[in-house]
Amino acid sequence: MTSQNPVFIPGPTNIPEVLRKAVDMPTIDHRSPVFGKILHPALDGVKQVLKTTQGQVFVFPSTGTGGWETAITNTLSPGDKVLATRNGMFSHRWIDMCQRHGLDVQVVDQEWGEGVPADRLEEILTADKAHEIKVVLATHNETATGVRSDIAAVRRALDNAGHPALLFVDGVSSIACYDFRMDDWGVDIAVTGSQKGFMLPPGLAILGFSPKAMAAVETAGLPRTFFDIRDQARGYAANGYPYTPPVGLLNGLNVACQMLLDEGLENVFARHHRIAEGVRRAVAAWGMQLCAKRPDLYSDSVSAIRVPEGFDANTIVSHALNAYGVAFGTGLGDVAGKVFRIGHLGSLTDVMALSGIATAEMVMADLGLPVTLGSGVAAAQDHYRRSATAMQKAA
Amino acid sequence: MTSQNPVFIPGPTNIPEVLRKAVDMPTIDHRSPVFGKILHPALDGVKQVLKTTQGQVFVFPSTGTGGWETAITNTLSPGDKVLATRNGMFSHRWIDMCQRHGLDVQVVDQEWGEGVPADRLEEILTADKAHEIKVVLATHNETATGVRSDIAAVRRALDNAGHPALLFVDGVSSIACYDFRMDDWGVDIAVTGSQKGFMLPPGLAILGFSPKAMAAVETAGLPRTFFDIRDQARGYAANGYPYTPPVGLLNGLNVACQMLLDEGLENVFARHHRIAEGVRRAVAAWGMQLCAKRPDLYSDSVSAIRVPEGFDANTIVSHALNAYGVAFGTGLGDVAGKVFRIGHLGSLTDVMALSGIATAEMVMADLGLPVTLGSGVAAAQDHYRRSATAMQKAA
Amino acid sequence: MTSQNPVFIPGPTNIPEVLRKAVDMPTIDHRSPVFGKILHPALDGVKQVLKTTQGQVFVFPSTGTGGWETAITNTLSPGDKVLATRNGMFSHRWIDMCQRHGLDVQVVDQEWGEGVPADRLEEILTADKAHEIKVVLATHNETATGVRSDIAAVRRALDNAGHPALLFVDGVSSIACYDFRMDDWGVDIAVTGSQKGFMLPPGLAILGFSPKAMAAVETAGLPRTFFDIRDQARGYAANGYPYTPPVGLLNGLNVACQMLLDEGLENVFARHHRIAEGVRRAVAAWGMQLCAKRPDLYSDSVSAIRVPEGFDANTIVSHALNAYGVAFGTGLGDVAGKVFRIGHLGSLTDVMALSGIATAEMVMADLGLPVTLGSGVAAAQDHYRRSATAMQKAA
Amino acid sequence: MTSQNPVFIPGPTNIPEVLRKAVDMPTIDHRSPVFGKILHPALDGVKQVLKTTQGQVFVFPSTGTGGWETAITNTLSPGDKVLATRNGMFSHRWIDMCQRHGLDVQVVDQEWGEGVPADRLEEILTADKAHEIKVVLATHNETATGVRSDIAAVRRALDNAGHPALLFVDGVSSIACYDFRMDDWGVDIAVTGSQKGFMLPPGLAILGFSPKAMAAVETAGLPRTFFDIRDQARGYAANGYPYTPPVGLLNGLNVACQMLLDEGLENVFARHHRIAEGVRRAVAAWGMQLCAKRPDLYSDSVSAIRVPEGFDANTIVSHALNAYGVAFGTGLGDVAGKVFRIGHLGSLTDVMALSGIATAEMVMADLGLPVTLGSGVAAAQDHYRRSATAMQKAA
Repeated sequence: MTSQNPVFIPGPTNIPEVLRKAVDMPTIDHRSPVFGKILHPALDGVKQVLKTTQGQVFVFPSTGTGGWETAITNTLSPGDKVLATRNGMFSHRWIDMCQRHGLDVQVVDQEWGEGVPADRLEEILTADKAHEIKVVLATHNETATGVRSDIAAVRRALDNAGHPALLFVDGVSSIACYDFRMDDWGVDIAVTGSQKGFMLPPGLAILGFSPKAMAAVETAGLPRTFFDIRDQARGYAANGYPYTPPVGLLNGLNVACQMLLDEGLENVFARHHRIAEGVRRAVAAWGMQLCAKRPDLYSDSVSAIRVPEGFDANTIVSHALNAYGVAFGTGLGDVAGKVFRIGHLGSLTDVMALSGIATAEMVMADLGLPVTLGSGVAAAQDHYRRSATAMQKAA
Repeated sequence: MTSQNPVFIPGPTNIPEVLRKAVDMPTIDHRSPVFGKILHPALDGVKQVLKTTQGQVFVFPSTGTGGWETAITNTLSPGDKVLATRNGMFSHRWIDMCQRHGLDVQVVDQEWGEGVPADRLEEILTADKAHEIKVVLATHNETATGVRSDIAAVRRALDNAGHPALLFVDGVSSIACYDFRMDDWGVDIAVTGSQKGFMLPPGLAILGFSPKAMAAVETAGLPRTFFDIRDQARGYAANGYPYTPPVGLLNGLNVACQMLLDEGLENVFARHHRIAEGVRRAVAAWGMQLCAKRPDLYSDSVSAIRVPEGFDANTIVSHALNAYGVAFGTGLGDVAGKVFRIGHLGSLTDVMALSGIATAEMVMADLGLPVTLGSGVAAAQDHYRRSATAMQKAA
Repeated sequence: MTSQNPVFIPGPTNIPEVLRKAVDMPTIDHRSPVFGKILHPALDGVKQVLKTTQGQVFVFPSTGTGGWETAITNTLSPGDKVLATRNGMFSHRWIDMCQRHGLDVQVVDQEWGEGVPADRLEEILTADKAHEIKVVLATHNETATGVRSDIAAVRRALDNAGHPALLFVDGVSSIACYDFRMDDWGVDIAVTGSQKGFMLPPGLAILGFSPKAMAAVETAGLPRTFFDIRDQARGYAANGYPYTPPVGLLNGLNVACQMLLDEGLENVFARHHRIAEGVRRAVAAWGMQLCAKRPDLYSDSVSAIRVPEGFDANTIVSHALNAYGVAFGTGLGDVAGKVFRIGHLGSLTDVMALSGIATAEMVMADLGLPVTLGSGVAAAQDHYRRSATAMQKAA
Repeated sequence: MTSQNPVFIPGPTNIPEVLRKAVDMPTIDHRSPVFGKILHPALDGVKQVLKTTQGQVFVFPSTGTGGWETAITNTLSPGDKVLATRNGMFSHRWIDMCQRHGLDVQVVDQEWGEGVPADRLEEILTADKAHEIKVVLATHNETATGVRSDIAAVRRALDNAGHPALLFVDGVSSIACYDFRMDDWGVDIAVTGSQKGFMLPPGLAILGFSPKAMAAVETAGLPRTFFDIRDQARGYAANGYPYTPPVGLLNGLNVACQMLLDEGLENVFARHHRIAEGVRRAVAAWGMQLCAKRPDLYSDSVSAIRVPEGFDANTIVSHALNAYGVAFGTGLGDVAGKVFRIGHLGSLTDVMALSGIATAEMVMADLGLPVTLGSGVAAAQDHYRRSATAMQKAA
């Protein structure tokens, strides 16, 4: 039923054997002390992955989308003003959610392929003398376009503007993949999920709240119960949970954090960068362009690759699945049909990446694109070879 | 880390081997056609389990609590009037959620151990000439007290009153355990989860919406995005999902429905009744009383057992865990310390039930309660023996 | 397909979750260094379980029967004389194997239910002035009759007779269940399997060879290749194996040994004794007799229970399976139809044992035997209660 | 602990998810009727895979080596004459086993890389007027050299010589990989294991016996008990087994046969040929030679690749493991250090094969061999692309 090839979608990612087994648990009594011994190490592990010592972590049986909703409903009231950049499908969706919850979103539209424009945000924030903007939303990694934005720059924009707005960051496809620093960057809410850098099945929304975000909870007027972090906090304090917890996924999260921390976060990031760079060199060898406009925007989680004008990128994805049993990502929204995506996050080796690159070459050749078989593979091999020793030491 | 004894909590239940394996899936591309082949049979299976042909089924990566929120946020607006009975912790929590969402809840308080008072509801509905009450909430199985309420009677109350209110039923711990008839009883929204009668790990909120409930969605003013069934409906229509779906749990749900339907729902119900009746006979043999006031209120999912005045029921639960590695349920809310609960729902055999009964006897004897060792076991054995043959044919 | 009730056969035993997962491994390269890191800890662990520092351990992809064959073919030559006691089906089978391999077996027949008669062996060995007897075979735990023999006494018989024969012990259903002391008792070859005290699936023959047994290998004339321990020894020395090794089971063996040693062997034995004693008290409460003749012969691994004259014990086993989905053991050979067996070895809790006892009571009542429901359960409960605290500390 | 890259050793092979789960079973009572429902379909499935209607199948908890021993000990007596070809490590080992069991082996030595010389065998058989040769041994696929021999030609040699010797074939790494016809080719004993074409973990020796081989069992004088097929046959007839059966692996074998037969054996063979041909084209693109001397000898299970004179092939295998976490096979015996092997049997896709080819290229480049990165990949891609459609229909 399921192919044994690795998947190259930008999440959910390939699940390591040890995490498969950690999640697959028999039923335990979640009101017994055993539960606390799973929950608290998982929460502590996430804190370390988020690089926060001051933040509090909350984990919901939900998804990244639920994480977005948790962020806004716990801190905002109807009519509150939010400043957000739209530069891809996922930043769009968070904006849409805000609007559906009655928030007043000031949208900064960027061409898809661009990042969050910190300078433009600074202008807007500076102009907002009345501090009506309560929150700035930023998508760290736009999964739809393979664009990494500079969150430290967004923080500087806020600071330069002397603006007290909260900074909420969607790190769904960046956290545990490349560098994320909740405390250093003054992130007030970080949102992620289980199925990307944590290499688990989907099913968890994972959030970090800064003390400032926690303070905002008391005055937030948007209704919420399932996503109310106060109920979670009360539960955790009693080694419990406000409703039936997803014990297996929490156990998996605990083990995933251990794996990441044992490897070392910087090594995890270096590993992602190395794999991603191989993919990018393959793309260059094919004579193709990334959707991301400039190297400083290139994502180490996913590459969105532009196809020639007039060619339907979706055919690459469907043919790869039908002919070779390999899953790539389609383009979404504004770039639908214009890009296909290779996910290279989570539990992926250079060897697996090469099989994805080789498959993409066969697919493009099958579909008449002028790609030389083996060309991208060779470029990636060259990169992986030269960088192998260092990686090996890290492994 | 985890005991190999069965659990006797009223959910999550013991997970059958085949469902463990169905849930434990490698990552697939949820945007590929494979996903639809998991999703749609699962949705169809749930429809059959709910006994609805007209309803639509929605499944969220969430819990029963998220299911409650889905029900109210998709159909109601702030200030809308809701009529609800409070007769235990779970009906209380749904009411609390409504209030936190700004609804105006008219609460009918019942002694814990009583069911939903259909006659009283009929009076109230009849008196509501202006039809201000938009929804009647009813908890089919109060997990906290082991009380089964008569949903058909609630429907008759609505009909007798000629009242157009919607009927929302919490069937979290009844559906797939004992008879539930969404269409026959005119249930507008049925709410359940994965971790009870469906015998899966927690992580899914499962809902059925009647056409009348679907119609109410269009005018509902409460904000929701994650729980918006319109996004779900659009996703399903395209063999997709509005965000990352919990594929393993959906696959498990599909297989669970097949198991239930292959066994035959009436056989599933008879099996639950048989196991439950054995537990009840044990309780009677111990000279103890159920929290449920009358036999027609006895739940086939869980029995809450009253302990003698002055005795702390929680010690039974903690001692069972510490001394014998067996999990029972504690009393919650008004009956905290006054009852302990034996869950007998989901994948449980007579043989397993006997081990739970035997453990309860040891525990109570250890704690000085006047229980004769073997007495409850003998009563249950007698029942299981006499009813074994019929069950065996059904198995 | 498979019942979720525990099994009560005298092996294979119930497999703990952690061992299920340890065995279920993806393929590794067994010629890589990873293999040695699985193999050697497993071998070392077995040595500790056998309580030997001088012996060498060998593990074959086979069963206990293959272990018997390994013992005789590596040490004996056609026509060699062997002294063996036959007191049950498994001692019988080892004798039969010797005869099929051309050995000259002097059989001491004992009534089934009796143990190995050390005094009689001493007489025979003393009379064997020419030391023609090369090996004494002894079955530590006769699985067919639930009889434990005194291996220390057999050693004393050899010593008293001043006889140099090797002592080979079938510890298949005793090792890792109750006390076994390879070095102290001067056992020259100990034979066991994976599926009893080690709680793993079947598939491994596990042997300890004393230095004296190792010396005998050089002169043994029976042909063997698959079971040749010299090939194994050469393989181990190179972190390898003479043919494709059963990596998953070896990994499981490693983890199983860790579990046993972490619990503490004496605690493991005490746990088995406690569970077994509960079963025996139940049998006494039923007014029935064990096949084992005297308390000093009672096995802590399995109880064979005599049924009344004229009653077919096999009907108990078949009815238990058909009506309640519970597996007990039938009688074998001379005691076929006369006994049924309750296995209580490996990963079994008091709670699980009570469910087996309760089932046996229902079955016997169903079949018209004069057993009072709950009587055996109560006797076992009483024992388990009184012994619970000490066990709890050990757990 | 274990890499998530596929393995490219010539067995054990990558285990499909569904077979992992089929093997990983809770304990069942192997004396219950459930066992027969696993055993007999597995035996029937193997018969179909062997393409025999007249043969009987036996399955032992052992390995291919145990299968060899089963073949000879059940049919031969000490001093019996056996004719065998030695053209690699595995044919050598079977010969060695015969000698250790006291058989008189006439060895036809072939250069490693050559196949079984049917013409030379015919000469010897024709010369054996007294019919002293009881058995001809032939290794269908020499795993050490990647050589496929022509078993039909060996049968013709026997027939042309009018010789009644039995024909025993080692099909360990051919059966379920490429065409094997037990009945058509007059194979008297076929030997294989679980861990190659059947895609299971190691642990089973699998044999087919022709009626003529069955007849030989009655007069065979070599001692055997564990491997005695008469005990197996008696067990099977009673839905049982002569000792504790490896139930999980048997269940896996049943499911594996279903998978193979559902795919269609000819499709399985075509799939292996396609994957293998891609590897061979890569080897040619590298300018390297196979160990197998001629195309008609090329194995579809494994390719042994000659390295340049003076280069140590083992460094390729160790570097691949250390630097990239990929397992290839080393050279064994006469070709140790001269070849490395790429296993391409069992559950392997074109995409996985490409990752192995790409890895080999990186490794060889790292070690200074004059291999152009991407060259072998491109050659294989070209082949896989052109053959994809047909395969896709078969999948």
